[in-house]
Amino acid sequence: MKENRYDDKEFFLAYSRMMRSEKGLEGAGEWPELERHLPDFSGKRVLDLGCGYGWHDAYAVQHGAEYVLATDISSRMLERAMEINSNSAIEYRRIAMEDLELPDSSFDVVISSLAFHYISDFQSMAVKIHRWLRPGGAFVFSAEHPVFTAEGSQDWCYGEDGDIRHFPVDNYFYEGRREAVFLGQHVVKYHRTLTTYVRSLLSAGFRILDIAEPQPPESMMELDGMKDEMRRPIMIIFSAIKE
Amino acid sequence: MKENRYDDKEFFLAYSRMMRSEKGLEGAGEWPELERHLPDFSGKRVLDLGCGYGWHDAYAVQHGAEYVLATDISSRMLERAMEINSNSAIEYRRIAMEDLELPDSSFDVVISSLAFHYISDFQSMAVKIHRWLRPGGAFVFSAEHPVFTAEGSQDWCYGEDGDIRHFPVDNYFYEGRREAVFLGQHVVKYHRTLTTYVRSLLSAGFRILDIAEPQPPESMMELDGMKDEMRRPIMIIFSAIKE
Repeated sequence: MKENRYDDKEFFLAYSRMMRSEKGLEGAGEWPELERHLPDFSGKRVLDLGCGYGWHDAYAVQHGAEYVLATDISSRMLERAMEINSNSAIEYRRIAMEDLELPDSSFDVVISSLAFHYISDFQSMAVKIHRWLRPGGAFVFSAEHPVFTAEGSQDWCYGEDGDIRHFPVDNYFYEGRREAVFLGQHVVKYHRTLTTYVRSLLSAGFRILDIAEPQPPESMMELDGMKDEMRRPIMIIFSAIKE
Repeated sequence: MKENRYDDKEFFLAYSRMMRSEKGLEGAGEWPELERHLPDFSGKRVLDLGCGYGWHDAYAVQHGAEYVLATDISSRMLERAMEINSNSAIEYRRIAMEDLELPDSSFDVVISSLAFHYISDFQSMAVKIHRWLRPGGAFVFSAEHPVFTAEGSQDWCYGEDGDIRHFPVDNYFYEGRREAVFLGQHVVKYHRTLTTYVRSLLSAGFRILDIAEPQPPESMMELDGMKDEMRRPIMIIFSAIKE
């Protein structure tokens, strides 16, 4: 079953208080790096998988996108998106990305921010995305880093003094379901290796243009806990094109 | 200063007792994966950086290579290579790879097995390798995985019972020198992120064809400690071509 944790009231409330929810793109540490990889949106048809509050969709329209189809499994997310990032060029649609059916070659750009670690089968998704893109179309996404998803707890290893010792990696080559605590609740995520991300893209027919592990931006380094983000990668960004 | 630990008598003796030293390619867990990425060697001019015992050079010649320049910083390594993997098509040369000077477009293939984590500046090396390759030439190499080099000790984190808990990752975004214990001695290695490997290749002008994290082969799974190799990635393989 596809989990829809963001429609849980408590969970959604906690999410709404995160800096990225309150401040949008400027509140997301990885945004400067992700923005660098985004293609020219002028006149483009854009698909956003797991759009959340719709920040990236508003950005695409501000940068010239002709049409954006923004999908999410959570109706709470979409309600909020329609409140704060509504635009006649953006169509918000409630659907699990795995259930989406779209015509071949119907999009110029596919983006996704921190959503693919919630789906169990990235390879099938990559094949579909390749089909939905026109030749030369761009696919740019972020996901939780395999280092961050491998062990499962998504928490540091602490010493007796309560200080962070290091971040644990375990069961790296055993892909699949993990149950992590996020915003105080148990959330199902899926671990896959770097190899699986790369091979899924290549075998679907993508050319990989870049891979990046975002570091905290200088401007955020003084925020609580941000220096610890130098100690392990938490996200990974892929940029690819359909050849 | 470039470290030449393999010319230390004790260290070399310990190295010579490793399965990969005694059995050659068949004794190296990552070999089946690395072999999959190697290009056609027929009639090719091949450069091997950090050739060790010369196993890969003998393989290249057996698969049709016309000429192999095999370099290593260690004279003990090269002596052994000339004993067990001597061939009129292989030229062994003692030199640190950073000091190598070669004509532009003079090689069809560049390979390197588990050597780049010993050099401090991969980016400059990638630029030189790109220059030495003819257009369309292949660059295939393995190195220690960033997960394995980040924290520095290259050892598991153990519980009070002495059992492995997990593998520690720390200081991931602080690249550079690490001092690990390998074969009972302190060895200097260099940590760099996945991003740095990828970006060095791309900015030098390579196209990345594949990235793979080798898993232990089924045939070796019953060997001591091999199941633990499923718990964290220890090596990474890149396959690229000069465009």
